[in-house]
Amino acid sequence: MNKVVVASATMTPFTDHYDRDIRDLASEAIRDIFRKTEIERSAVDGLVIGSMASMSFTNQGNLGALIASENNLNSASFTVEAGEASGQAALRAAYSLIKSGMHETVLVLGLEKVTDIVKLPEILSVVNHVNMDSRWEADIGLTLASSWAMIAKSHMSQYGITREQIASVAVKNHYNATFNPFAQFKSKLRIETILRAPALASPLTLFDTCAAADGAAAVLLTTEEKAKSFTDQYIHVKGTGLAHGTLRIAERDRLYSIPAIKKAAKDAYEMAGISPSDIDVAEVHDSFTIAELIALEEMGIFEPGQSGPATEDGRTKKDGDRPINTSGGMKARGYPFGAAGIAQVVEIYEQLLGIAGERQVADANIGVTQALAGTGGTSVVHVFGTA
Amino acid sequence: MNKVVVASATMTPFTDHYDRDIRDLASEAIRDIFRKTEIERSAVDGLVIGSMASMSFTNQGNLGALIASENNLNSASFTVEAGEASGQAALRAAYSLIKSGMHETVLVLGLEKVTDIVKLPEILSVVNHVNMDSRWEADIGLTLASSWAMIAKSHMSQYGITREQIASVAVKNHYNATFNPFAQFKSKLRIETILRAPALASPLTLFDTCAAADGAAAVLLTTEEKAKSFTDQYIHVKGTGLAHGTLRIAERDRLYSIPAIKKAAKDAYEMAGISPSDIDVAEVHDSFTIAELIALEEMGIFEPGQSGPATEDGRTKKDGDRPINTSGGMKARGYPFGAAGIAQVVEIYEQLLGIAGERQVADANIGVTQALAGTGGTSVVHVFGTA
Repeated sequence: MNKVVVASATMTPFTDHYDRDIRDLASEAIRDIFRKTEIERSAVDGLVIGSMASMSFTNQGNLGALIASENNLNSASFTVEAGEASGQAALRAAYSLIKSGMHETVLVLGLEKVTDIVKLPEILSVVNHVNMDSRWEADIGLTLASSWAMIAKSHMSQYGITREQIASVAVKNHYNATFNPFAQFKSKLRIETILRAPALASPLTLFDTCAAADGAAAVLLTTEEKAKSFTDQYIHVKGTGLAHGTLRIAERDRLYSIPAIKKAAKDAYEMAGISPSDIDVAEVHDSFTIAELIALEEMGIFEPGQSGPATEDGRTKKDGDRPINTSGGMKARGYPFGAAGIAQVVEIYEQLLGIAGERQVADANIGVTQALAGTGGTSVVHVFGTA
Repeated sequence: MNKVVVASATMTPFTDHYDRDIRDLASEAIRDIFRKTEIERSAVDGLVIGSMASMSFTNQGNLGALIASENNLNSASFTVEAGEASGQAALRAAYSLIKSGMHETVLVLGLEKVTDIVKLPEILSVVNHVNMDSRWEADIGLTLASSWAMIAKSHMSQYGITREQIASVAVKNHYNATFNPFAQFKSKLRIETILRAPALASPLTLFDTCAAADGAAAVLLTTEEKAKSFTDQYIHVKGTGLAHGTLRIAERDRLYSIPAIKKAAKDAYEMAGISPSDIDVAEVHDSFTIAELIALEEMGIFEPGQSGPATEDGRTKKDGDRPINTSGGMKARGYPFGAAGIAQVVEIYEQLLGIAGERQVADANIGVTQALAGTGGTSVVHVFGTA
């Protein structure tokens, strides 16, 4: 059967692109793919777009047809949505199109435009209504911030991790981002700044979460056979897993764990034939600091309760022994919802090919990406390898 | 490689379900699948949802996680959007998940809830902004109704078809729907009523298009091997094609033809190894009467300019020699956007299995479904067969 590879990857800077709309961002990423890749546009026979809420933010639907025709792509195209996990879910759908033999080469484009056109309260309302249960949660006042705060408290109570350990995720991701030219925030952040920032929902503050950002990220998926005809710069997609949990947080047995992540990771690892100790570098969901800590535990990278201390000790810095979110993560690289899951793949692509510059992790052969919708509605995990 | 089959199919009535929200409609269709099919919920390992604009209409995103968890489905799930073609695009994505071997059994759920929660002008605005170019069309006053009116005039001018022939599509689809217990309109419609109705955009009137409706439709896709373990009531998915055209109508070379339909049909026919003359029954996109006429020509069922006269002559009635939209089509069966593409498959499933009751077409062995977004941004075509 076809071996599916990532044969090109790029992204726009993630920031507030006041001067560009959603189609400009898409075209910029697509142009860059064809600028750096020796492949004809006509060879790209599929286009899958990951976008979380383009109608809500930009009042434009059917992005597939719009972007394919604007960019002279003769590609069967559609959009995939799975809340905040839309980008990674689009990657999985594109993978299946190639694995099935229906397509040979599929461009996967993660895309979101929010700043300048939507005010922050509206952005937050959309994020809450996409990723939570509208009827029983978002409409009656629960927010993702307050949900993550409850999760943080539950995790602290269960494992005895400290507030400082949670904040150290943001410190670490800001540090990593100082080496990423495409990152939204290239400034360091101190623990004290996080702790003294305005509260979102106790114990979490403003600096435990991401800022609004616009951006596009694109990867070219194709068969290994096809890739060899135009490049030697490719990595393998070795495993994919997608799992859901209850959308409503009240229905979960416990708050300090997120079963959807564990299940998605298990499926992806089994398919790839790896175990967590094989992972050299990973990009995980860090919409809130606490999310990264739990992801690392559910993914088996640390034992339950150990990711907080490990982060505080610097083990997950780009120079640590378990480098996580070397891009800076959503927190510091930036988080244009649907684009983020594809930007994760861009980072792993560069790491595994050894072209990540100052962010380069030594001997990176296995990389993993993990996305999450809300506090656990959907999680998607992919495993990539140099062979 | 896996042969993919449709092993169960159902739908809710398409109408104004004032007493049910989007999750109630989904649960009703899913319950009916498991009521009539000898398969365990745990055996359904995938859920793909086709919905055009659930955030805009219901303020609820990530329907995959919501509906999977509400219905005890342990299924990897995501939503596919391709404008008005969302349902059929979801079917294609689900097909690839099985064909690739990633999933064995995938429930494909088409879903839309609009009435009672969104007023008609808002519904129309959403439809226009999803399916047209927001910046260069919808925001500056072009509507789908006026676009289709221009297309109708161009087609009349090019081929000499009459206004009455266009209206006869609605008459025929209403006639067919009188035999469909799930249809929104079970009343006959006369040519005079259509011509004298309030104008939408000349020459089209109110009765050349659909009414708002809510509904859900579901089909169970699986491998032939798996299907045989629980049913003998299945049909084969023999071909699939998805193509895009320019989203902006001003960029098309001519208005009386829609290249996306021709390309999608060609791809699907080639994959299935059929020619248009093999088609025994088809469900095609009839959001406006003129759309059905052009679809039939682009799909090769009639020569260019011949579908109007053929419809007027009754050849596309359920009892005609080329039965089209035996369900009543979007016009009369009803048109809850994302659900419609899956309802097309429900009709073909019943026709090919010979269980379509009073709508039954004799000796139906090959059935085709065709969906369209806007006036040609995206078209999706599927071919089904009894063998």
